[in-house]
Amino acid sequence: MFTVRENHILRLRQELPRSRVVWCRSSDELISILPVVDTLLTWHFKQEWFALAPHLRRIGTPAAGRDFFEIIQVPEDVQIKNGTFHGPLMAETALGMILAMNRGILTALRHQLQGELWPRPALFESRVVAGTHAVILGFGHIGQHIGRLLKPLGLKITGIRRRVESAPPVWFDGCDRLLGIEQLYNVLPQADHLVAVLPSDTGTDKLLNNAVFAAMPRHAVLYNLGRGNCVDEEELAHALRTGMIAGACLDVFAQEPLTADSPLADDKLPGLLRMPHASAFCDCYLDRYLDEFVEWLKNSV
Amino acid sequence: MFTVRENHILRLRQELPRSRVVWCRSSDELISILPVVDTLLTWHFKQEWFALAPHLRRIGTPAAGRDFFEIIQVPEDVQIKNGTFHGPLMAETALGMILAMNRGILTALRHQLQGELWPRPALFESRVVAGTHAVILGFGHIGQHIGRLLKPLGLKITGIRRRVESAPPVWFDGCDRLLGIEQLYNVLPQADHLVAVLPSDTGTDKLLNNAVFAAMPRHAVLYNLGRGNCVDEEELAHALRTGMIAGACLDVFAQEPLTADSPLADDKLPGLLRMPHASAFCDCYLDRYLDEFVEWLKNSV
Repeated sequence: MFTVRENHILRLRQELPRSRVVWCRSSDELISILPVVDTLLTWHFKQEWFALAPHLRRIGTPAAGRDFFEIIQVPEDVQIKNGTFHGPLMAETALGMILAMNRGILTALRHQLQGELWPRPALFESRVVAGTHAVILGFGHIGQHIGRLLKPLGLKITGIRRRVESAPPVWFDGCDRLLGIEQLYNVLPQADHLVAVLPSDTGTDKLLNNAVFAAMPRHAVLYNLGRGNCVDEEELAHALRTGMIAGACLDVFAQEPLTADSPLADDKLPGLLRMPHASAFCDCYLDRYLDEFVEWLKNSV
Repeated sequence: MFTVRENHILRLRQELPRSRVVWCRSSDELISILPVVDTLLTWHFKQEWFALAPHLRRIGTPAAGRDFFEIIQVPEDVQIKNGTFHGPLMAETALGMILAMNRGILTALRHQLQGELWPRPALFESRVVAGTHAVILGFGHIGQHIGRLLKPLGLKITGIRRRVESAPPVWFDGCDRLLGIEQLYNVLPQADHLVAVLPSDTGTDKLLNNAVFAAMPRHAVLYNLGRGNCVDEEELAHALRTGMIAGACLDVFAQEPLTADSPLADDKLPGLLRMPHASAFCDCYLDRYLDEFVEWLKNSV
């Protein structure tokens, strides 16, 4: 899914006929070609490679964040183009998590896999999603894609940002709000769904901790699709175990890949759904990035 | 969830101040009061009870179908009011199933419950839902609620009815279609999602059989939220086992409750999600029906 294939290379050659496209299969191959490269498409880059690439002007990478780049400072004449196609894919996953959690779908699968044939009483906890309230923590590009996909189901949306300097999205209706992070504790008691899509580089470490879980209603669920550093994982495990909140759907973790010593590796935690940092996975992943990458090159050359 | 409680009785007494509201806790209590009743709210009714109820004019029941009523013929002067609130709830469940199946959510939970910590390769099968094609088989009240909820995610909708006599819904766009059942095999090869919401009383027995599964793409998934009789369960189990289709999310079965001798009781069937006839379950179930029931009485008295 993340691997460049023959058809991708063919597409680049067809759409960029005046460029020479070289396909490197290893970091060594990449390093050997750096002296003559002006544009790179790569998952990884290191600070010291800039010194080897005097002609480098553009780096494209499908990742939404810069976690895979070991870069301290980007030279002034180099542009970096991260993928921005993740928003719609992650929004589908977030909406799917909310529906699967509230409509009994995850509960049904748990009971099915335990060999139960007709677990009706377990599903009496199912809830309607229309009319509920989603608080989206981190209301940038991706957070707004999520809100826009939730809206037609009749949810009330509260977007929370560090700084509220832009206008609310055009799809907001009278009950939706855009608030600064200082308002978080005021809205938590009214949240049915707390959807976190925070970047890792903003001083968000363990922002979601015991005090946050205590402020949420007991039926509410945490969804984290951004980065794992914002969750205090010990305190989240405790909140699930003691029923402070009804569940957590987590795509990201403080340490990835998840290891057995994580507080969230315990399979007895009630209401826990784990995904392996896969909320933007899809059959079309690299094709979607190539759409953006080719467009970017055509506009910048 | 399905049980009348004190607060429901209180509500009926408040909203219908000129009526005498009697709460029967058993069939015997109900039968004993039939001679003086003009309106009943009940889950069950038998043909012979009509003879005991000379003043009966209205029967309200929360069920969407009449399966719980052992009735051959309704007297001319008796009206029956089934619940019609199920559509929006079932639509949330159908959309949740489609997203959970395609975005890796069900796969992630399966692997989590097997103790796996980071099952990334299993999720490489995840698919984007926007731009895919849902064929909704049974495009009445409930089927149209499902289509309307799928539409804002960018799906193409094909509604299939026994008879195409009404205009397509106003929310259809240029790529959506309303077709007669005779077109089913023409659209199946283009279906990503086949959503069945057929009633049980229309000669639909085993309509979804080996020939249908063979006509669907191998990546497609069957969703059944109507009644179980329309699925040939032996042939569906075979289709899943041999990879003719990628999965099945089933809320209804030929025999309910499901028993261990069902072909679909096998937990090794790949891509199977079973729910216990619960797609309309929600915390507000009886409140939603009382909304309709009270409205109906106010308009008919």
